[in-house]
Amino acid sequence: METVPEAHPRRKSIMTRHALVAGFEKGLVCGQGLIAQGRGEAFDYLLGEETNDFAKDASEAAAAMLLLARSPVVSVNGNMAALCAREIVLLAGEVGAKIEVNLFYRTDERVERVRQALSEAGAKRVLGGEGRGEVKIPELFSERRRVSRKGIYSADVVLLALEDGDRTKALVRMGKKVVAVDLNPLSATSQAATVTVVDEITRAIPGIRFAAAGLRRANRKALREKVRAFDNRKTLSRALKRIGARMRELSGELGRG
Amino acid sequence: METVPEAHPRRKSIMTRHALVAGFEKGLVCGQGLIAQGRGEAFDYLLGEETNDFAKDASEAAAAMLLLARSPVVSVNGNMAALCAREIVLLAGEVGAKIEVNLFYRTDERVERVRQALSEAGAKRVLGGEGRGEVKIPELFSERRRVSRKGIYSADVVLLALEDGDRTKALVRMGKKVVAVDLNPLSATSQAATVTVVDEITRAIPGIRFAAAGLRRANRKALREKVRAFDNRKTLSRALKRIGARMRELSGELGRG
Repeated sequence: METVPEAHPRRKSIMTRHALVAGFEKGLVCGQGLIAQGRGEAFDYLLGEETNDFAKDASEAAAAMLLLARSPVVSVNGNMAALCAREIVLLAGEVGAKIEVNLFYRTDERVERVRQALSEAGAKRVLGGEGRGEVKIPELFSERRRVSRKGIYSADVVLLALEDGDRTKALVRMGKKVVAVDLNPLSATSQAATVTVVDEITRAIPGIRFAAAGLRRANRKALREKVRAFDNRKTLSRALKRIGARMRELSGELGRG
Repeated sequence: METVPEAHPRRKSIMTRHALVAGFEKGLVCGQGLIAQGRGEAFDYLLGEETNDFAKDASEAAAAMLLLARSPVVSVNGNMAALCAREIVLLAGEVGAKIEVNLFYRTDERVERVRQALSEAGAKRVLGGEGRGEVKIPELFSERRRVSRKGIYSADVVLLALEDGDRTKALVRMGKKVVAVDLNPLSATSQAATVTVVDEITRAIPGIRFAAAGLRRANRKALREKVRAFDNRKTLSRALKRIGARMRELSGELGRG
């Protein structure tokens, strides 16, 4: 892996990119996953490469929803495993969620690599890819509709990230609440999810975990109130406004520069 | 390659992505090139996935600059070869430019693949990777500083795309005029270039060619006037304003939806 100077203004972003390319070389991440990372990078850049207020509010609502859930599941793909396997295991532990591997571009080998990365990060049990234990999501085609009967299929709340819009919509149609981590406030996933955390995955996953830790002593009524008060459409609108404002700001700097 | 329904609203973008993944599988494109494509896709989406007025104006200035050049060179990387090899050959023919392969993540094998793709697209002569015919750009490290003595090194105008900012700056310091195709109006390359065409590469390259064809009968004085009247800083500012305006527009739709 290349080294990036400590003082480089975009060091964190470049390190994340390197981690993903390393995951690609290990067979965790696929080519389309690299392109998806690039799209995310661009949006993160436009959002200021920081956790904005609307993302913090969404993380609070997401944490409350996960803590209230009967059977929450964190759905993990190759990019997530390459970038934050350990943080996923910690979050699942904090909210009592199961972990399931679910890949859009699925091969048995890649499922196995992702399972292995999660196990190495401390996961005791990883669902997904069981074969006979899998069932199909209605109205979805291709391999991505296969989910674990004991995991996503029977979950009431699913946390997912960097997800295909059709699959997110299918989960919502099945009556599940969906927490999505997605940097594009306009994506089909962002718009279909119950709670969208518009933030970079390596900041968002620990952010939700910290929010959950802070809510550990809250009673169910308070948690329900937090979920009820959350408006996803407004959150996405705030994210778009932030991008617009940053563009105007940078545009002005350019004019003066 | 997967098929994309004719009616899919983002068909062109998805087809381009597939072409790049195919280029990756053929060894033309590297992992970092896929991530770069993703960043570009996000900006293209924010720019409306169309050739905007500021890109048309920049293409006119770029065409005039290439036609006025004593020794223009088109610098080609893996993404460009995978996405528009034929269009590059046609543009080079239209303005009398040389073609040179220049890769950021350079391996002899990938240089050879890119040369081959350009030859298959009709290029008679491709510079770059000659070994003894190469010299080094001052003040630049790593393999990317190697350029062809008969090509970029002695060029007065270089057209490049999806380029590293430090390398663009080094070319400008060497006194060259640089035409950059870059979807991010804030990138170091966009800001260092003499003329930046903020547009997607498969639209920008034919766009510059059409502009050059339209200027074929213009005299040198008219061409010089076109170059003189062009203001790159204003062009980039217009691109940023377009993104800001689109964000506000989409943000409003979200609020009403």
